[in-house]
Amino acid sequence: MSKVRFHIATSLDGCVAGPNESPEEPLGQGGEALHEWAFELAAWREPHGRDGGEVNASTPVIEERQANVGAGIMGRNMFGPVGGGDWGDASWKGWWGDEPPYHHHVFVLTHHEREPLEMEGGTTFHFVTDGIESALDQARTAAGEADIQIHGGASVARQCLNAGVVDEFELDVAPLLLPGGVRLFDGIDPDLRIELARAVDAPGVTHLKYTVSR
Amino acid sequence: MSKVRFHIATSLDGCVAGPNESPEEPLGQGGEALHEWAFELAAWREPHGRDGGEVNASTPVIEERQANVGAGIMGRNMFGPVGGGDWGDASWKGWWGDEPPYHHHVFVLTHHEREPLEMEGGTTFHFVTDGIESALDQARTAAGEADIQIHGGASVARQCLNAGVVDEFELDVAPLLLPGGVRLFDGIDPDLRIELARAVDAPGVTHLKYTVSR
Repeated sequence: MSKVRFHIATSLDGCVAGPNESPEEPLGQGGEALHEWAFELAAWREPHGRDGGEVNASTPVIEERQANVGAGIMGRNMFGPVGGGDWGDASWKGWWGDEPPYHHHVFVLTHHEREPLEMEGGTTFHFVTDGIESALDQARTAAGEADIQIHGGASVARQCLNAGVVDEFELDVAPLLLPGGVRLFDGIDPDLRIELARAVDAPGVTHLKYTVSR
Repeated sequence: MSKVRFHIATSLDGCVAGPNESPEEPLGQGGEALHEWAFELAAWREPHGRDGGEVNASTPVIEERQANVGAGIMGRNMFGPVGGGDWGDASWKGWWGDEPPYHHHVFVLTHHEREPLEMEGGTTFHFVTDGIESALDQARTAAGEADIQIHGGASVARQCLNAGVVDEFELDVAPLLLPGGVRLFDGIDPDLRIELARAVDAPGVTHLKYTVSR
């Protein structure tokens, strides 16, 4: 059975980005530190085309979340710099170079139409202008029996939670505070019911996995 | 070396109480559920004068935090119902009956003077009207080589964090959301440096322990 799931790094005060997001600091001031625990991991480096790296308690967590993903969904602000407007000459192809680390169909929510963008390594970005339900329908078709991963950002993850379509999520809680940052759960549906599935104590991060019901 | 430490239950969205705190619901709407994981534990029941209970992964965590505490600090709103004013006929003796679960000297921050209140079982409440530094000084004297525990609420814990006097803290992250509730880290000093000491995966809760530096 195909699941809809996401994972996201948060600060201890529940922020997924620091204050003052900008093209130079897409994760806001201090937000890059949310991901420090990941950068040295072999399990993170390999899909990002880098050699070497460590194996630790985070490794099986990363491997599990990378497995069995058939399609992805992402917000416009995760695909490109904050802002909006149309796609201009369509030269922007995401943050990830020629070979993004997804290797599946990714449905990007946007207000502006654009032709699908086929990248190296099996990632194709599709631009969806008719809302999150439509993106989910298309992702379901693309994924088949495999899972759908919400790649972010926080706003899309929250919309999916509030729409009742998320089956599980995992927070990578990093040991830092980002006061004034972007809070994952701002505006969350108070009737959402969550259950703790498991917690993993790893170097510099805690992985907290939850299942969702309503 | 005596440490200053606290532990507090938080929701996944970082709240230590639900919205609309009142005398009937001192933890706000839905806030009681933050502590559900604890009520069935023998390690919680015994100091609260109740028999029986379970032993699980939370047990050593609770035992550790109850050990070596020489004095405590608490806010007025934790000692009594929300509100203020003077102590009237001083008939209010806390939420905990004749034998509170502290068994040491507890310094209650208040704007209103009151004589010390000696309870059964070794707990004495002292009412401190000249601020948190004074309460800490008195607690240090009372504690000697043992630790000082900040019993709460969130506002006192945050004041102590911002004053740079906290050595470590542990969050009991419960699997629920309390939108509109009381956030532990609202107004926290962004220059606080925290490090993950350990995480414990227990039934219905995750214990996240951090050390603090500046």
